[in-house]
Amino acid sequence: MVTYREAGVDLEKADKAVKIIAQVLKKHGVSPSQFGLFGGIYKISGTNLIASADGVGTKLKIAFMTRRHDTVGQDLVNHCVNDIFVHGADPLFFMDYIAMGKLDLEVLRSIMEGFASACSRVGCLILGGETAEMPGFYPEGEYDLVGFIVGKIDGEPIDGRDIREGDRIIALPSSGLHTNGYSLARKIIFEKLRLSPSAPLPWDPEHSFADELLKVHRQYYTVLKDARALIKGMAHITGGGIPGNLIRILPRGKKAVIRKGTWEVPEIFNFLIKEGELSEEEAFRAFNMGIGMLIITGDGLEEYLEERGEKFWMVGEIEKGEGVEIA
Amino acid sequence: MVTYREAGVDLEKADKAVKIIAQVLKKHGVSPSQFGLFGGIYKISGTNLIASADGVGTKLKIAFMTRRHDTVGQDLVNHCVNDIFVHGADPLFFMDYIAMGKLDLEVLRSIMEGFASACSRVGCLILGGETAEMPGFYPEGEYDLVGFIVGKIDGEPIDGRDIREGDRIIALPSSGLHTNGYSLARKIIFEKLRLSPSAPLPWDPEHSFADELLKVHRQYYTVLKDARALIKGMAHITGGGIPGNLIRILPRGKKAVIRKGTWEVPEIFNFLIKEGELSEEEAFRAFNMGIGMLIITGDGLEEYLEERGEKFWMVGEIEKGEGVEIA
Repeated sequence: MVTYREAGVDLEKADKAVKIIAQVLKKHGVSPSQFGLFGGIYKISGTNLIASADGVGTKLKIAFMTRRHDTVGQDLVNHCVNDIFVHGADPLFFMDYIAMGKLDLEVLRSIMEGFASACSRVGCLILGGETAEMPGFYPEGEYDLVGFIVGKIDGEPIDGRDIREGDRIIALPSSGLHTNGYSLARKIIFEKLRLSPSAPLPWDPEHSFADELLKVHRQYYTVLKDARALIKGMAHITGGGIPGNLIRILPRGKKAVIRKGTWEVPEIFNFLIKEGELSEEEAFRAFNMGIGMLIITGDGLEEYLEERGEKFWMVGEIEKGEGVEIA
Repeated sequence: MVTYREAGVDLEKADKAVKIIAQVLKKHGVSPSQFGLFGGIYKISGTNLIASADGVGTKLKIAFMTRRHDTVGQDLVNHCVNDIFVHGADPLFFMDYIAMGKLDLEVLRSIMEGFASACSRVGCLILGGETAEMPGFYPEGEYDLVGFIVGKIDGEPIDGRDIREGDRIIALPSSGLHTNGYSLARKIIFEKLRLSPSAPLPWDPEHSFADELLKVHRQYYTVLKDARALIKGMAHITGGGIPGNLIRILPRGKKAVIRKGTWEVPEIFNFLIKEGELSEEEAFRAFNMGIGMLIITGDGLEEYLEERGEKFWMVGEIEKGEGVEIA
């Protein structure tokens, strides 16, 4: 059995880290007005700005293994766009940080192509960035990427405050692992099973594990931006999975019940659970399990999505209580 | 003789990288209106926002060697604050990215203390951030830090457009290396000379090389913020040194002449030049040589600085011509 902690990622410790950060910011009087949102909100001249910072995590290792560097930039931008869109924001500008052990101009170009194409799709400028050559810091051929986005919220942020009992929870499919759970997935696929990145997928031999693991993190802004008035809350399912992210937008006294079997879990997740002998709880904390975005809504969103031919699932509803129940 | 390129940092390649980035952004229609500034400017509801992204570079290695993690956060915030202040901005909010091989909560706390204390000093909130545990990516005990800052410019940005022949160039001292040139400095001190971080400085045996190399990057916002009306242009002296940074704010037809001998070069730079057998040109590109901020001004700034008891040097003036001449 492989656990996320064994794979080197300790989610309990991560929770402690969040508490330490909150303490230190409070002590120095530099806290934002709200803490724990997917992005931080800053009001200026009557406009709500929202900002978020993200990395790609160890999904980058798949890019290194396969020398395919044109997707990870898109992953990062899409992740950032989703993180501010859950509060209702339109993206304004993005900035990047690329640190390489040895500056490789062709790799840099591929990464930038990813950033720029993804930004272009959502009308977001790339306002600047930092490209650092750090010898002895990253091995040759490796790099780290960080993205920072600023958006604008017209009116009040979507933050879950209007969520009521009986509201429905709609799920939009993820494209795959998106950008979390890679330390665990890599441990299972490449260490335990000793598969090569080019090995064919058992359930889809036309494609390799590399293809599956490099699928681009899906961006939900384009499909949902005209539906904001119908949405009471959104949770971008990243590290921490459905329980770890949905909890962030639930008001007190409201419980979210997510019913298993109401959506299709892609084969990659079943494979990882079986081969890694993962407990279901572990899998739901480490992976998105096929759901990239959860939306809490009253009425009208189903029609909106149906009209656009969008795939979605009704996966649960809001009840009285506390927390997230995976039933 | 040790060159910056031998130390693994290739400034010519870095220039090519900037060109590639500009090309890709243009191709996808996501370029900012101005390119090459210290920060990127975005206009919203009549307000000029400005943003910048930075890392600490391999100065972090000194923190790892000495297990002193309370200064690098300050370095990063101060670097970011300076980068947007050169265009006249007040800092609004900062976001951080901390990536560790293994999450160490005490190290995290020290880093955050650095971020928060430096932000508090300039009235900047920390709006959020990302703390990533990336096993197999960074060795245990190592990490990378990235900072993003957003500020606001009242009125027009300071960008050098009003620089005239005869304007004077005033320098404010750096505290030491600040955050650039560390790959070269480490190569000379720890590889060539095989000194230990705790070795005493030859010119100041009360302090060690670690003390010298961890001196906090100085922040110039506090001392200069009330003098903005007197300033025509500022250059934050970071990677690329005096020539690489001063050039960024000179209008066409204006040359900056910097006269050697007009300021005190701190001992650390003389030591690095001597022991590394650096050419003067190499040293001026890799290090700040004792100057952290260059300010181009007409009248009044000397009195302003004298009244406040601030140390400064008159290091040159603007002439007809192109480029930066170190005379």
